[in-house]
Amino acid sequence: MKGFSAVSMLEPASSASFASRLDAVAHEVSSLLDRLLGAAAEDDEIVRPARLLDAMRYGSLGGGKRLRPFLVVESAALFGVPASNALMVGAALECIHGYSLVHDDLPAMDNDDLRRGRPTAHKAFDEATAILAGDGLLTFAFDILGRAETHPDPAIRIRLVSMLARASGIGGMTSGQMLDLAAEGRFDQANTSPMTERDVAVLQSMKTGALLRFACRAGPVLGGADADKAGALDRYGGAVGQAFQIADDLLDVEGDTALVGKATGKDAAAGKATMVQVLGIAGAKARLHALVGEAEAALAPFGKAATILVNTARFIAERRS
Amino acid sequence: MKGFSAVSMLEPASSASFASRLDAVAHEVSSLLDRLLGAAAEDDEIVRPARLLDAMRYGSLGGGKRLRPFLVVESAALFGVPASNALMVGAALECIHGYSLVHDDLPAMDNDDLRRGRPTAHKAFDEATAILAGDGLLTFAFDILGRAETHPDPAIRIRLVSMLARASGIGGMTSGQMLDLAAEGRFDQANTSPMTERDVAVLQSMKTGALLRFACRAGPVLGGADADKAGALDRYGGAVGQAFQIADDLLDVEGDTALVGKATGKDAAAGKATMVQVLGIAGAKARLHALVGEAEAALAPFGKAATILVNTARFIAERRS
Repeated sequence: MKGFSAVSMLEPASSASFASRLDAVAHEVSSLLDRLLGAAAEDDEIVRPARLLDAMRYGSLGGGKRLRPFLVVESAALFGVPASNALMVGAALECIHGYSLVHDDLPAMDNDDLRRGRPTAHKAFDEATAILAGDGLLTFAFDILGRAETHPDPAIRIRLVSMLARASGIGGMTSGQMLDLAAEGRFDQANTSPMTERDVAVLQSMKTGALLRFACRAGPVLGGADADKAGALDRYGGAVGQAFQIADDLLDVEGDTALVGKATGKDAAAGKATMVQVLGIAGAKARLHALVGEAEAALAPFGKAATILVNTARFIAERRS
Repeated sequence: MKGFSAVSMLEPASSASFASRLDAVAHEVSSLLDRLLGAAAEDDEIVRPARLLDAMRYGSLGGGKRLRPFLVVESAALFGVPASNALMVGAALECIHGYSLVHDDLPAMDNDDLRRGRPTAHKAFDEATAILAGDGLLTFAFDILGRAETHPDPAIRIRLVSMLARASGIGGMTSGQMLDLAAEGRFDQANTSPMTERDVAVLQSMKTGALLRFACRAGPVLGGADADKAGALDRYGGAVGQAFQIADDLLDVEGDTALVGKATGKDAAAGKATMVQVLGIAGAKARLHALVGEAEAALAPFGKAATILVNTARFIAERRS
């Protein structure tokens, strides 16, 4: 942890230094998860069986850009929060993100064999182990937030618990998955009317937006920011969350499986409602551009200190994988 | 909530009044969950889609004795904790318990069609909905613990979050499920040696014991009990947790499907390791008797105030369903 510098204190980044910052945070989060998901049982734990631990590690240590922890670290750095605290929240977020991928890939859900260029968890292990590994990761996120290492003030830790539970549960990500399956016409084909732009926006704000927004809101909470500044990061997080999903939808249409690391063209095949579907490719790209503008505008009060977050919004919109 | 009296302030209970107390708490917990799992979105939630909410309600409002909340309420009452606080913790526990049943019943897990005399969640809905409902309930448990309604002191709420995460995650219940599947010889049949009594004890302490022990430890935490008294409830919870699982194993051998509300004889069919298997029926009954004695001994310092908890230990050992 000590090797990690407060990256946002540096001068405005070139795209090369942005990439190296992103890599540095990814490395730190992976090291932290590697430590937290060690073989030894913690206080109040009985044992950590090897097979479940291996599957939880497989579901959370398998690469990925670690974009959510990066957003936590960078939004926290604006308020002088030590990276060690922000990384704990980032690690918790990655447990939630990892669990959602493991469960989402299951045969009864999206039935995917490939994730980040590797077999999905139920292919690498088995279905029961994948279900339990997802459950274990989901639970572990709250274990991490409960620790004093995340923040010395219990009131801040419990606030993060509440926010994460809402971003990822019935009012957030889990329901986003549910709406996504419903949009495929799984549950009542006869009654499925075409989704409007508004329907897609709500679905996406839950499925992927809520967790990304949480990542941007966590920094101000960790740093005890005032309502104006917290509101600015919230608006930024909202725009970035929408941009992320539209970029994802575009990648599914235009992306290369080898780069993306998972099957592409699946949305159309599954009849999923996406922004590309309701706005067209050109319309989706225009919306993406507008969202990056919104994200930048939200950060205006921070001036140059927020350059890295501005670059992050651009990166999210322009990514090719 | 207001209608609920501090039951442990009453005189030592007859078995009739024990049953009515158990029913009263079950009723209160169900009402509370019914309210918490209402249709309206809370702050920071976007929407609560009907299908997911229905499945979460199905998985948590489908009856059951509500033994875990009862243990929280009764252990909390020893320390003068308002029932309204204890019931919130009890509701969180029921979300965890309910999620574990929904996921455990899935085709890739125990593949059960019947639970508490009703179709299991994936039969009543579908497999994807059951997976998501389990995820939603698990997440919601931490949402509940995060609320000021659970306890005004954030330090106590975050302590409960940490304890519940450990009781139910990689070091507790989730791993208990994993060990249970492994004990069936699912993962490496060739390498499976017969389980010893010690192996079965560890498995059971994780699979069912950890959550029951949490229920008994939550009261002292809510009430700010001293270490001696907290330790007494912890020992009680450990004994009660073991007793519960042995009674369950005996029910699987001797029970009546109609009374138990789920298929019996499944453990032997699945080759599951149980205390009945390693100790025999008579040996398991003797162990059960000894555990009730341990539970009673642990409560000795509380005198008559703990009568209801003594009766609870007996009830757990002698239950027929």
